[in-house]
Amino acid sequence: MEKIKQGDTFECPTIISQKEVEIFAIISGDRNPIHIDEEYASKSIFGRRIVHGFLAGSVFSKVFGTLWPGEGTIYMSQEMSFLAPVFTDTEYMAKFIVEEVNPEKHRGVICCNLETINGKAVIIGKALLMHIDRF
Amino acid sequence: MEKIKQGDTFECPTIISQKEVEIFAIISGDRNPIHIDEEYASKSIFGRRIVHGFLAGSVFSKVFGTLWPGEGTIYMSQEMSFLAPVFTDTEYMAKFIVEEVNPEKHRGVICCNLETINGKAVIIGKALLMHIDRF
Repeated sequence: MEKIKQGDTFECPTIISQKEVEIFAIISGDRNPIHIDEEYASKSIFGRRIVHGFLAGSVFSKVFGTLWPGEGTIYMSQEMSFLAPVFTDTEYMAKFIVEEVNPEKHRGVICCNLETINGKAVIIGKALLMHIDRF
Repeated sequence: MEKIKQGDTFECPTIISQKEVEIFAIISGDRNPIHIDEEYASKSIFGRRIVHGFLAGSVFSKVFGTLWPGEGTIYMSQEMSFLAPVFTDTEYMAKFIVEEVNPEKHRGVICCNLETINGKAVIIGKALLMHIDRF
């Protein structure tokens, strides 16, 4: 893979299943009924069950850790703002743009958003990464 | 549960197993070998496999969503800085303190850290939550 530089972009489609939400509820311990109880969630402001923010946002971790920059990436920080609910079995697009790169420190700041297929942001985020080879 | 107010604190112990890391690698798609490949990780700067930041940090989601403030919490945002690796089968303490509360907007800003049992912070974070009843 080439060096990553300011302005570079990347996209990754993602769909999360209700089964994955239920597994995440178990391993994280976050069994809030808004994520797993269909009847409870139907009466909530969201009208249906929603994906945990940490599970929806983990597509950023997947991309950074395995695709772009990929193996060798060390996560320094992540900010996420949850603007709208993320639903299961629904296609979203994770979109990335390199905001700045510090080649001496091998660090990069990446803006990372999760958007609906109509381009509405549901999560907006920013990550600080370290990678010896690719920044 | 009582109203939550500025300065209130909460603590929650947490231990993550390698099995949970492997399950998270599957559902998140983050199969970076640093998390799952023992030999690869042994040659890394960490010397052993490390927990995904998003899985380690999900204890914050567990606490907010199920314990404090608990059911009815809506996650608005989360910041996390990963200061040191999180290892499996190791006891950590998630520590929370309410930085500010806006009763009119039913919102609270909570500082949330993950610390070793010796009190060394491995993740420092901040969350913005909404909860109709408890702020």
